[in-house]
Amino acid sequence: MIYNEHMKRIVIFGGGTGLATLVRGLKKFPIDITAVVTVADDGGSSGKLLNEYNIPPPGDVRNVMAALSDVEPLIEKMFQYRFASSKSLEGHSLGNLMLAALTNITGDFARAVEQMSYILNMKGKVLPAANERITLQAELEDGTIVTGESKIPVYGRKIRRVFLSPEEVRPLPETIEAIQKADLIIFGPGSLYTSILPTLLVKEIRQTVFEASAKKVYICNLTTQLGETIGYSASEHVQALYDHAEEAFIDTVLLNTTDFISLLDHESEEECPQPVEHDLETLEKLVPEVVQKEIATVIDGHIRHRSEEVASWLMAYMEESTKK
Amino acid sequence: MIYNEHMKRIVIFGGGTGLATLVRGLKKFPIDITAVVTVADDGGSSGKLLNEYNIPPPGDVRNVMAALSDVEPLIEKMFQYRFASSKSLEGHSLGNLMLAALTNITGDFARAVEQMSYILNMKGKVLPAANERITLQAELEDGTIVTGESKIPVYGRKIRRVFLSPEEVRPLPETIEAIQKADLIIFGPGSLYTSILPTLLVKEIRQTVFEASAKKVYICNLTTQLGETIGYSASEHVQALYDHAEEAFIDTVLLNTTDFISLLDHESEEECPQPVEHDLETLEKLVPEVVQKEIATVIDGHIRHRSEEVASWLMAYMEESTKK
Repeated sequence: MIYNEHMKRIVIFGGGTGLATLVRGLKKFPIDITAVVTVADDGGSSGKLLNEYNIPPPGDVRNVMAALSDVEPLIEKMFQYRFASSKSLEGHSLGNLMLAALTNITGDFARAVEQMSYILNMKGKVLPAANERITLQAELEDGTIVTGESKIPVYGRKIRRVFLSPEEVRPLPETIEAIQKADLIIFGPGSLYTSILPTLLVKEIRQTVFEASAKKVYICNLTTQLGETIGYSASEHVQALYDHAEEAFIDTVLLNTTDFISLLDHESEEECPQPVEHDLETLEKLVPEVVQKEIATVIDGHIRHRSEEVASWLMAYMEESTKK
Repeated sequence: MIYNEHMKRIVIFGGGTGLATLVRGLKKFPIDITAVVTVADDGGSSGKLLNEYNIPPPGDVRNVMAALSDVEPLIEKMFQYRFASSKSLEGHSLGNLMLAALTNITGDFARAVEQMSYILNMKGKVLPAANERITLQAELEDGTIVTGESKIPVYGRKIRRVFLSPEEVRPLPETIEAIQKADLIIFGPGSLYTSILPTLLVKEIRQTVFEASAKKVYICNLTTQLGETIGYSASEHVQALYDHAEEAFIDTVLLNTTDFISLLDHESEEECPQPVEHDLETLEKLVPEVVQKEIATVIDGHIRHRSEEVASWLMAYMEESTKK
């Protein structure tokens, strides 16, 4: 897409299908989108290819890239394609192979992600929170230390805090610049402890967010997440953000009011998704503004944000908040 | 790129670096470019991946795709990237892996090529001359039959004729439509016997070319080619086209007059590239118009067409020839 100086700029910190859904709505507007994603891995166990080429695991990077493309369903299938015949590349999707190749060619994972966005003509930029391999660790409520992003949710115990190893991580200059120039900064949707918080654990990112002139919106997840936020109310999500950031920095929280449980068929109901409880009284003490809207839907048995409604609301909110 | 109904349409039959160079010049103009490329292979010996996925060898397809991209040098490097670590994918470039994956996803090589052009935001279309695996064979001057595109030039003997196996090959409907709607049809540059002639051996393509209202230009190669056209004059190139097509169908031949031998440094000179001789008297009996222009250059020791000059001349020629 052709960017111009007068375009509004949105920076999003998120992950997983939640981030992809959000981006799918936003890409239809003439705005400059930057998605900052976590690339913490499991400490060297993420597969041969990543170790050989020393690149962070690009799952979230790949998903949001696909969402930012104009030929989305196909590009997603291509990214996820695996060669059954291959022994040594086993388990690696074509998307990962492309990123690994570009990392090797450009000599740098962040540069590879940037270049891939040009090659694929994406409607926005994707930036890894760090340009090096970092490992995410968690301290559970009983004091257990868990190492590795994918292992943290497995324990099913309440998480006291997450932290990075190494602790001092340098962000990309592009990420810092994007935050400084942003007209709106969005946190979520995405896994609280394994997608959103790790980006805030990068000190320079956190500080730049605090100092940024843009409003900060938190889009709360629709449901609680097994092994991460079971039993969490909306205010507990925000409190976890504040505890890790060591500052109360959110201006507005966006909550869903669609009763999606009634939209699920019986089969899906057995998976027992739990809507995030709206404890408004506590929440309103933590953030200046709480907005509740019907913004959920069910697609193929999966609970999702309605990308168009969320994007439209965000656009209106940004217009209003950046009025001179 | 955004196509519109009023854009002029150019169809090119060519191959190799010659085709890539031409396309590199043409893509800067607001025109609809379709490159038709040969996908003949060596009869089942082209490597495990192609056999497993039953796709034609995509070398030329890949090269012209890269040339049609806006992020050309990088995309070329990505296409050519090979994973050193891989055993079973050994020898396969990432470009081939992408085409193989898309062939598997779309169920069809031609569809894969088409979709890849959307994914990579190309400035034109690439169409394989056939959507099935065909083998190119040659009868040499001594009667020897050689099977396999890559083996034909190895013999170094004069080629009497080339033919396809199977002989009856169905073209893509898109190729036929492109030829019918074309405002200009270009043959060359490219290997005469292994790139250009095989596309003309497809009966329906050949007949549609004859019937097409567009002018047909032959861009003669700059040098003769080892194992294919050693000693060939310009008229012998054209005669080979006519002999295989069984019709005199070229309106204009474009010849180079740059003395590129003097531009080569000593080291390159030892490779002894032979300029194609301009036997104008014979040539003018074969084609209504012969145009001679300074259109060659030397890049990194390689003799190439000047893409901008050739493209500009072609644009002017097309404007003139399509005037009402």
